[in-house]
Amino acid sequence: MLDAVRLSLQEVHDTATALLAAQGYNQAHAQAIANTVMMAERDECRHHGLFRIPFYINALRAGQASPDAEPTVTRLAPSILKVDAHHGFSPLALERGDAPLAELAREQGIAALVVNNALNVAALWPEVERLAERGLVGMAYVSAAPYVAPAGGIKPLYGTNPMAFAWPRAGKPPLVFDQAASASARGEIQIRMRDGLSLPEGWAIDVRGNPTTDPKEALAGAQLPFGGVKGASIALMIELLAGPLMGDTLSFEAGERDVAGTGAPCGGELIIAIDPVRCIENGNRQAQLAHGEMLFEKILEQDGTRLPSERRYEARARTTVEGVTIPRSLYETLQIFKAGNTVERLHAYEGDELIRSVAVT
Amino acid sequence: MLDAVRLSLQEVHDTATALLAAQGYNQAHAQAIANTVMMAERDECRHHGLFRIPFYINALRAGQASPDAEPTVTRLAPSILKVDAHHGFSPLALERGDAPLAELAREQGIAALVVNNALNVAALWPEVERLAERGLVGMAYVSAAPYVAPAGGIKPLYGTNPMAFAWPRAGKPPLVFDQAASASARGEIQIRMRDGLSLPEGWAIDVRGNPTTDPKEALAGAQLPFGGVKGASIALMIELLAGPLMGDTLSFEAGERDVAGTGAPCGGELIIAIDPVRCIENGNRQAQLAHGEMLFEKILEQDGTRLPSERRYEARARTTVEGVTIPRSLYETLQIFKAGNTVERLHAYEGDELIRSVAVT
Repeated sequence: MLDAVRLSLQEVHDTATALLAAQGYNQAHAQAIANTVMMAERDECRHHGLFRIPFYINALRAGQASPDAEPTVTRLAPSILKVDAHHGFSPLALERGDAPLAELAREQGIAALVVNNALNVAALWPEVERLAERGLVGMAYVSAAPYVAPAGGIKPLYGTNPMAFAWPRAGKPPLVFDQAASASARGEIQIRMRDGLSLPEGWAIDVRGNPTTDPKEALAGAQLPFGGVKGASIALMIELLAGPLMGDTLSFEAGERDVAGTGAPCGGELIIAIDPVRCIENGNRQAQLAHGEMLFEKILEQDGTRLPSERRYEARARTTVEGVTIPRSLYETLQIFKAGNTVERLHAYEGDELIRSVAVT
Repeated sequence: MLDAVRLSLQEVHDTATALLAAQGYNQAHAQAIANTVMMAERDECRHHGLFRIPFYINALRAGQASPDAEPTVTRLAPSILKVDAHHGFSPLALERGDAPLAELAREQGIAALVVNNALNVAALWPEVERLAERGLVGMAYVSAAPYVAPAGGIKPLYGTNPMAFAWPRAGKPPLVFDQAASASARGEIQIRMRDGLSLPEGWAIDVRGNPTTDPKEALAGAQLPFGGVKGASIALMIELLAGPLMGDTLSFEAGERDVAGTGAPCGGELIIAIDPVRCIENGNRQAQLAHGEMLFEKILEQDGTRLPSERRYEARARTTVEGVTIPRSLYETLQIFKAGNTVERLHAYEGDELIRSVAVT
């Protein structure tokens, strides 16, 4: 692996923090984003890891991301908190809202955190995993830029609109899933285009609405929701929850506002936290979690099954010891950023992940 | 249509009430179930309509459904209500919990209703539609009997596990969807078996885990979630929300407890209500709903699209004027029930819907 560089997780974090600071982020944002990036590398969710660094920098250079906005937390109703990111990236806002949300959920039984005006290019699982680590059930919903056609339609309207869910486990990391409402991530289509591969059926349609397996036609056309009409309903629900419910943008509005085309939409996120012990008279956390384990045992006693997030936790155990490898080309780009310089176009990743080629403004 | 009988919605309601009372339900349960049945007929969701009457009767005769349990509403936490159905069917429990949940959501911003020990064979859309008619966002989750294989597995474990969502609209009935986490309803497979038709691919696997389009093999094997692994994750989430979260049954437990095989599982349901105006500082319901309409307009300006629930509302407009038609065979069975008698086996529906043949104990 001559073309790869091995970094410990601490080095990933330090490198990311240093380069984000060198590019203009204040320490609070640099640390929060670096933490998100490190967690993604740690769990081998690489397209949310160092690969994303150019997105964070580009949105800053385009004047769309605030380098130093301090998120503000307010209580809108007895069980509703709001954190306004003031056009900063979401990681710091989510950090600021996390403990107050958990505390409120324990007090009220159920509580919601409304995240406004946050730029978001990260995964959702960190915020729900954090809640579940403290014994709470977490659900999160976020919309994005318009890529996905509505049911029966042919033009992009919905975002890939992920939702995440976490359930606490005693003595084990939580059960978590984080999944897009689209059949595939946009990056998966771009990777196949780069590699000259065709797409599985059901991922996309061309501009005339015909099914296509050609990545180029898919990117010009529209992505499809997963699971047909039902997945489209979920995408639609997430548009409403992360937008009109909280006075924030729909995906198509976020797309229109991303005038520089940074691919880092600014919008809302809804996080719901529920405390299981408050959902039963004299609730018993241990018994409730043991009940969940009964289900997991029933799943795992069948050959060929695994629980959502198992793969991430396996990667986590491994990378915590061994560190991660990144392509040398990405490593070198990171060094340029770290020196406070930039490049004309960002070709972030040349290993096993996509290059997104973004012009730096 | 010599073999069909036309009934007004009032007649549907009166017939259902009378026969449920004749079979042993008290007035409160008879009225609540009849209302649910009438709403299903009204919206042409026929397999939740009069077709379901035998299920309500059979579970009563088997001693699994209470004829007269009065649901009790208690407050478990500032934002959590519980309604215990005490082994009655869910419609009365849902009626009793509805107004308190709406009131609590307005007060707290977000609130949950935990429904325990309810037998459930009805659709979920009525409970979320009621919330949205009062300007609230509604979400509901319920598990069922074990029919669906987990991701990668081959044996039934999850229920068909529907979830419902409703969004309020100004001057229009709410946007609502109510969809199973399985690729198809169980009834759709049974109908195809009766009619000698094969199944679409992706609905089911046989006992060895091979894909099958044979309805008989599908019923002996397992249904599949919609949308592959992602649909399975949603089914899994619903198991946890409607079970361990609230100290109620998982689908496989509900199946085990239905010793008489009535097909009317007893378990939990989670309903979440959110008040949009409490999710924004100085929230403005009118502006928020107008924002939702922007999305709906964008959907509908594309050819071939429609909004979830449009078909139900069209049916509602029609049947409110014209009434509904039901097969004569079903009508005659209903008359037998109405006279306080029963039949050996229930062959409820011979028109365009499934016969489920249930032995009456």
